[in-house]
Amino acid sequence: MQHFLSVNDLSSNAIHSILQRAEEVGNNPSPNAKGYFAANLFFEPSTRTKTSFLVAEKKLGMETLDLQTNTSSMSKGESLYDTARTYEAVGADLLVIRHCQDTWYDQLSGNISIPLINAGSGKKDHPTQCMLDLLTIKQEFGAFKGLNVAIAGDIKHSRVAYSHASALRTMGANVYFVEVPGFKDETLGIPYVTMDEACEMCDVLMLLRIQHERHGLSAYDTSSYLADYGLTMERERNMQNHAIILHPAPVNRGVEMDTRLVECDRSRIFKQMENGVPVRMAIIQRLLDEGGGIL
Amino acid sequence: MQHFLSVNDLSSNAIHSILQRAEEVGNNPSPNAKGYFAANLFFEPSTRTKTSFLVAEKKLGMETLDLQTNTSSMSKGESLYDTARTYEAVGADLLVIRHCQDTWYDQLSGNISIPLINAGSGKKDHPTQCMLDLLTIKQEFGAFKGLNVAIAGDIKHSRVAYSHASALRTMGANVYFVEVPGFKDETLGIPYVTMDEACEMCDVLMLLRIQHERHGLSAYDTSSYLADYGLTMERERNMQNHAIILHPAPVNRGVEMDTRLVECDRSRIFKQMENGVPVRMAIIQRLLDEGGGIL
Amino acid sequence: MQHFLSVNDLSSNAIHSILQRAEEVGNNPSPNAKGYFAANLFFEPSTRTKTSFLVAEKKLGMETLDLQTNTSSMSKGESLYDTARTYEAVGADLLVIRHCQDTWYDQLSGNISIPLINAGSGKKDHPTQCMLDLLTIKQEFGAFKGLNVAIAGDIKHSRVAYSHASALRTMGANVYFVEVPGFKDETLGIPYVTMDEACEMCDVLMLLRIQHERHGLSAYDTSSYLADYGLTMERERNMQNHAIILHPAPVNRGVEMDTRLVECDRSRIFKQMENGVPVRMAIIQRLLDEGGGIL
Repeated sequence: MQHFLSVNDLSSNAIHSILQRAEEVGNNPSPNAKGYFAANLFFEPSTRTKTSFLVAEKKLGMETLDLQTNTSSMSKGESLYDTARTYEAVGADLLVIRHCQDTWYDQLSGNISIPLINAGSGKKDHPTQCMLDLLTIKQEFGAFKGLNVAIAGDIKHSRVAYSHASALRTMGANVYFVEVPGFKDETLGIPYVTMDEACEMCDVLMLLRIQHERHGLSAYDTSSYLADYGLTMERERNMQNHAIILHPAPVNRGVEMDTRLVECDRSRIFKQMENGVPVRMAIIQRLLDEGGGIL
Repeated sequence: MQHFLSVNDLSSNAIHSILQRAEEVGNNPSPNAKGYFAANLFFEPSTRTKTSFLVAEKKLGMETLDLQTNTSSMSKGESLYDTARTYEAVGADLLVIRHCQDTWYDQLSGNISIPLINAGSGKKDHPTQCMLDLLTIKQEFGAFKGLNVAIAGDIKHSRVAYSHASALRTMGANVYFVEVPGFKDETLGIPYVTMDEACEMCDVLMLLRIQHERHGLSAYDTSSYLADYGLTMERERNMQNHAIILHPAPVNRGVEMDTRLVECDRSRIFKQMENGVPVRMAIIQRLLDEGGGIL
Repeated sequence: MQHFLSVNDLSSNAIHSILQRAEEVGNNPSPNAKGYFAANLFFEPSTRTKTSFLVAEKKLGMETLDLQTNTSSMSKGESLYDTARTYEAVGADLLVIRHCQDTWYDQLSGNISIPLINAGSGKKDHPTQCMLDLLTIKQEFGAFKGLNVAIAGDIKHSRVAYSHASALRTMGANVYFVEVPGFKDETLGIPYVTMDEACEMCDVLMLLRIQHERHGLSAYDTSSYLADYGLTMERERNMQNHAIILHPAPVNRGVEMDTRLVECDRSRIFKQMENGVPVRMAIIQRLLDEGGGIL
């Protein structure tokens, strides 16, 4: 594993091995990358993902470099390629990049000799988010085979839906999408169900954030979204006892779900955030390990 | 002490004990919070307070996380509560927050299980600034009982005036406000004097910054402020030999005081900034100590 | 050496000694400034210079403080002087400053008792960039005496041209400027040649960035710049076998040079960036050494 760019690159074995390492490192973190530099280049807003990477890197003992897009030479028109090469030249040992292009890494991966991690790319992929969600599911159910996972919401504009559907099927889960007019995408061949059906039959209900910032000009009217397609108190009562709720956050409270459910018993939303740290530590360790056996 | 939110929460004993610890830690700093993470969430501009916290945290050996409000998910509409819970979930052991709301902590303090520090709230409170000013006074006079402290300037829009009047009286000092039309506030029951009277009788002259940024639309005309209510060269000459000058900074030079007095012999303005570091180290240590006996 | 402000302050001996230390520290970095704080105050955009300073400081074991101009008290109108004194008061041991004024340090250097480093000042000076370019040349040719160095491009708005012409002549090199209408400056007494002449006779071709951001209102038309004055594939073929290409970056690709030449065999553009780190480590070490024998 030279880079960590897409869930599609990962076999079931590779996923298992990352999740296992994440559990180990979560129980017993060790700063064994001391003296190494991680550069975090976020070209789109982020709190959770970026902070989680920072914590992961610091817990590994790494020094962190942080691109501030508004005060960097990007404001002088510098390209992603030149920016990334610059960080490599000044001493970064790892690049973590979030960028609005679906495949920003195509222009880099042949020319950069240090590991790249995709921290979110366009509408396509968010592989570290996928791994932390898988870890959360694994902690709950032990395995993935035969689990019913329903993904509900803004499928079309979400980079989480694509990654997750793909990885969950690789792991043997049954994936369903919830049908919301305007947000449907049929290219992945996933069966659609209604929100009511989803709540009744799923083991894992994965709510997606409405990605207002990727809808372009047309504002999406959310006034009846909760009642029509969101997780109301009623729908939550119809869920199976053991079923859990995931959301990549930030939650649009009162839209994707009733605000009272954000921290309810079956919500794992803050657990997901917690899991982001050991998952990212595990991925970074693996990349530094295999990219020349640093660790 | 679970959180550090308001001077009003502090007894005279608690204040004494913090000041004493600040003097100890200032003389003999020790990185005994290694491996702990502090998150600094500043929703209003700050150089001094924020940098001072960063230095304090780093001197204690902590790792620091820094919210950048313009590139975080706050720009996607995330609430203070969700942001704070996120930092807790990814591993922060302490939250330092500055926010424009007077009591931003009401929505957090019951639901967050890590210590909170108020780094400035609305027009109400700035308790760590208060403690560093008290330390500066203590270093000068040894005690507070019977000291005459005059607070001059934009009382109405200052979060420093409120904190300080309250804490100084708790410590036994006599507090006076200087009367400036438009900036008066009678709710605290502090006696008013003129600037000339204040300069002649005070042991400590505490100048406040004109808070242009909190005056709303109407621009305040400062052209005759120095002559009418500010610290001119003449007024300074009428001060008692031992009297000192404080200002929370940044100074509007030539408005609240003659620019030549900013670094004069009786000015403790840069000493105040220095004292910010040990005071904040002492407060952080106490919170980590008592929040589960970490230290 | 108390501060590091201008190449003009440096004798040939001083330059030699910094370059030598840079080579030593590059081969054998050591975190011998542990516990010291560097404050990096960048009032103009920067990726390379700022990141390079950060890496240098962290490799020396220092803690770093970072002024964010948009979220600091600068936005409340605080002056450079007060900002710098504030960083000194809260505990900075070193100030690294980039500012648009040609001689921003005049207002500081008498009043600040910690070392100052000029990380770029107006159109005048960029002394650490100069030192890293000299290091790159020295690594290639061993010495400077008699080398032909041609500097091509936006001489008039570049802070690199001034520093470099001065330092290179101090070191015994022959410096030429390439004539570009509108970008000429005759105050330095450097002979002008055409781009074709420069390419044929130089040992070092130093391309300058067109400083669009310093041209004021009038947009400069770059459509025929490459053909007329830039480094085309043809001109590169006419260069001597051993000649090298430098550029301070960011490159305006396809303007100052053909994009295919940015990483060609004779380009040392990314090597320059690499060299920024040991050069800055060497300068910081010297300042901390001599400013009270810290190291």
